Amino acid sequence: MDFPDQNDISNEQRETGSTFAPKFDVNGLILAITTEARTGQVLMVAYMNEEALCLTLTTGIVHYYSRSRQSLWKKGETSGETQRLIDMRVDCDQDALLLSVEQTGRGAACHTGQKSCFYRKVTIRDQKPSLKHAAGAPLFDPKKVYDRG
Amino acid sequence: MDFPDQNDISNEQRETGSTFAPKFDVNGLILAITTEARTGQVLMVAYMNEEALCLTLTTGIVHYYSRSRQSLWKKGETSGETQRLIDMRVDCDQDALLLSVEQTGRGAACHTGQKSCFYRKVTIRDQKPSLKHAAGAPLFDPKKVYDRG
Repeated sequence: MDFPDQNDISNEQRETGSTFAPKFDVNGLILAITTEARTGQVLMVAYMNEEALCLTLTTGIVHYYSRSRQSLWKKGETSGETQRLIDMRVDCDQDALLLSVEQTGRGAACHTGQKSCFYRKVTIRDQKPSLKHAAGAPLFDPKKVYDRG
Repeated sequence: MDFPDQNDISNEQRETGSTFAPKFDVNGLILAITTEARTGQVLMVAYMNEEALCLTLTTGIVHYYSRSRQSLWKKGETSGETQRLIDMRVDCDQDALLLSVEQTGRGAACHTGQKSCFYRKVTIRDQKPSLKHAAGAPLFDPKKVYDRG
């Protein structure tokens, strides 16, 4: 699967056309925001390289690129929490993707065992910000899932 | 408003604690995903620098940092489509923010006049991806809003 170069299409084509020309950044990555199909809740945000994007589109199983491990990341390969692609959208300038997925396994997209990575709310008191836990109990124990020697 | 340096807190504090220590990237920016409070719909994604984040938290009006203009960007200053902050969350490693906002004006977060920047769906046919418009008509005419000489 090849994607056209954004430099080869007009600004109008990029913003309103039907040509999918994802803009990868200087590191070859594009942002992917992932939401739960059933509820629309934002689960996580990560990056894809061209290989991850192609694999996601051709297999229907979401793949990202891990910046920390510098390698292709089939989401859920270790934890079992894979993501089945339901819908993919692209934004106006085609440098971000919005995925709608079915989160399998125990339903936790986050490595902490939480359903969503956004489980803490920023609160302000006396001009000082702090975080308040704003989600339920984790759906799995990360120690048991990831620390397998 | 000062934010602690991520290097000064433990991994556990960063991921499960109450200390808000946003991780700005090498360009001093942090990702902000913006959703509509009423529906949870993802409207847009942009970046904030420290100043934009502080202004957003202290004024309740969303500010970003424009990478193309390299300057503080009070969302809606030109178009009138300001965003009132309802809720802010941070992700597990504190390098992304999730905003819940009330989108004012005509309700269009996107500079194209669309409510959401994610108005096109990626479709695959005969192994070839293309984009299909998947939203209603724009809520304003960008030519009239931005081209004012």
